[in-house]
Amino acid sequence: MDHELLRAEFPVLAELTYLNAGTCGPLPRAAGAATTVLQHEAETRGRAGEHYGALVQAQEDRRARYAGLLGAAPEDVALTSSTTDGIVRVLQALDWSAGDEVLIAEQEHPGLLGPLAALVEQRGVVVRTAPLEHLVEAVDGTTRLVACSHVRWTDGTLAPAALAELGGRVPVLLDGAQGAGAIPVDVTALGCAYYAASGQKWLCGPIGTGLLWIAPDRRADLRVRAPGYGNLQVPAEGLSAHPWDDARAFDALSMSAESSVGAVTAMDVLAGAGWDDLLERAATLAAGLAERLTASGRTVAPRGRTTLVSWHDDHAVATRDRLAAAGVVVRDLPGTDLLRASVGAWNDERDLDRLLEVLAG
Amino acid sequence: MDHELLRAEFPVLAELTYLNAGTCGPLPRAAGAATTVLQHEAETRGRAGEHYGALVQAQEDRRARYAGLLGAAPEDVALTSSTTDGIVRVLQALDWSAGDEVLIAEQEHPGLLGPLAALVEQRGVVVRTAPLEHLVEAVDGTTRLVACSHVRWTDGTLAPAALAELGGRVPVLLDGAQGAGAIPVDVTALGCAYYAASGQKWLCGPIGTGLLWIAPDRRADLRVRAPGYGNLQVPAEGLSAHPWDDARAFDALSMSAESSVGAVTAMDVLAGAGWDDLLERAATLAAGLAERLTASGRTVAPRGRTTLVSWHDDHAVATRDRLAAAGVVVRDLPGTDLLRASVGAWNDERDLDRLLEVLAG
Repeated sequence: MDHELLRAEFPVLAELTYLNAGTCGPLPRAAGAATTVLQHEAETRGRAGEHYGALVQAQEDRRARYAGLLGAAPEDVALTSSTTDGIVRVLQALDWSAGDEVLIAEQEHPGLLGPLAALVEQRGVVVRTAPLEHLVEAVDGTTRLVACSHVRWTDGTLAPAALAELGGRVPVLLDGAQGAGAIPVDVTALGCAYYAASGQKWLCGPIGTGLLWIAPDRRADLRVRAPGYGNLQVPAEGLSAHPWDDARAFDALSMSAESSVGAVTAMDVLAGAGWDDLLERAATLAAGLAERLTASGRTVAPRGRTTLVSWHDDHAVATRDRLAAAGVVVRDLPGTDLLRASVGAWNDERDLDRLLEVLAG
Repeated sequence: MDHELLRAEFPVLAELTYLNAGTCGPLPRAAGAATTVLQHEAETRGRAGEHYGALVQAQEDRRARYAGLLGAAPEDVALTSSTTDGIVRVLQALDWSAGDEVLIAEQEHPGLLGPLAALVEQRGVVVRTAPLEHLVEAVDGTTRLVACSHVRWTDGTLAPAALAELGGRVPVLLDGAQGAGAIPVDVTALGCAYYAASGQKWLCGPIGTGLLWIAPDRRADLRVRAPGYGNLQVPAEGLSAHPWDDARAFDALSMSAESSVGAVTAMDVLAGAGWDDLLERAATLAAGLAERLTASGRTVAPRGRTTLVSWHDDHAVATRDRLAAAGVVVRDLPGTDLLRASVGAWNDERDLDRLLEVLAG
């Protein structure tokens, strides 16, 4: 697909210099239209058998799209509401004993740290932190789980490739919030046990969508703590009902048909442009932005070949607001002096020119 | 509000004889319109600070509407994705020891039984079942929690009023899926510790909305197991972050602005007609349907002054399908020979006439 055609799918790009997919991606017009059609059907035809049929179909379509993106089997992908939702599903489903250690990297996201804090307080789990680049060597005999970002949210640094070698020894939980849809993700090659990601960021879907991949040989380590209707094989069996044997046992409860249809339609818009081309294009654009920021005298944070570009600014919040007032959307990162631009394949040099122009003030 | 004006708010009522609010209520046109407007804003203005402001506002509006309906304080109401979601949040948040007993009533919903089955298997909890009418007398020294439906989903029977007397001794978890928005609910008078309900049934909101009321004096019994961003006071504090001190600590993760706006708008349509009048009207209509079904020779299941009317049918699935083909939407109840009609204030005698006419064949 021609870049201009892809770009035209995203109304926000005609209005703003939108560089914020690391929070929420731009929404394709087609996703909104598909959602509105479904909503109109629900309004006029009610929500009974027909609607539930559409809901189940939309969920299975969504699962298949996520699986295709990750090089995974659909039965190993749970549908969640967000990256954090996937992370908490794993952390809650493991059996913990007091003293069990979780090894994490520096600068992890609150979506991992928050649920870990609860495990520390309630189950006596111990959290140890190591620099991302030394994470593999930091693993020792007490390490029960390694958890870190696939792409670090603060600066776009990649997790070390050596993590893949850990797989056989210690399970690895990857926070893929800035990975899925941003860079190539092959869950088997990554060697992780669990990969949690967001639907509303680089996959351009609705807020309230996400995914959790569970390695087939790690599924038995997880207990289904709180099965809802959709997690059970035959809900009518009541106290004798069993959860699904596959990742559906970990699906979030009560997701709407509208959210799944929005997510699927958005992914189909992206897939229509060719994932390989999109990911290559976004990485190249982002690298170019990092170079131009450096050339303009800014200090860009260390990063990998990803879609996040962060740079230091002594007045980060003020600069963010000044950019926003000029129609350029980036974000600041609380607790740091960093500003972060998220560069997708839907962006182009015009967006980067505009960012640099307004930054130069 | 005039009945015809209220009825006109629901497009499905012009198309079908819709008697299925016990699964999903009719969607008001205004809710769809408000959702579409918000979605258009998100498409054209992106989803950054402004969108998150709208999201937080919509959530607080939704919390306030639920609280108003239950006679509760907003800080005691958590936003969930469904009744089951609220139930599992409570069951997971309590500390269980092997041998702890949960006393339930007969004919409870899979949304309660499924998560209880997990507690039995994983924590050694014991579930004892008693007839609903003898539930209070069945409580003994080993009972740690009483859990039952406020309005039984199979036939519309009400939980015994004497449950209120238990409050001081043993906490009571009420499944209010067929209660909130269907009959008057005053959580204080009910004397329960937890009241979980649905947003998509009698409150006519989107699938993926629900509520959990937590009695202030029972909040300390609950541990926040898996705090996401929205459950934490200052997420950026990472491993030192603390959950909110109020019910926000139990909010579901990653709810969309669209779902909350849809829920709020639907409740405002209903509130505009006056809740007291609506609830009285629905109960009277439902009682009238029960009488007419009995008069026509059908055996109506025992029921209370609620909005569900169930009757026995040896060919329940076939009859449901025959009704559906004629545009009359009721549901069958798997594992029983019952058909169930859900009667809301938006319905009227024309709907009941049509049901009886098609039933008579």
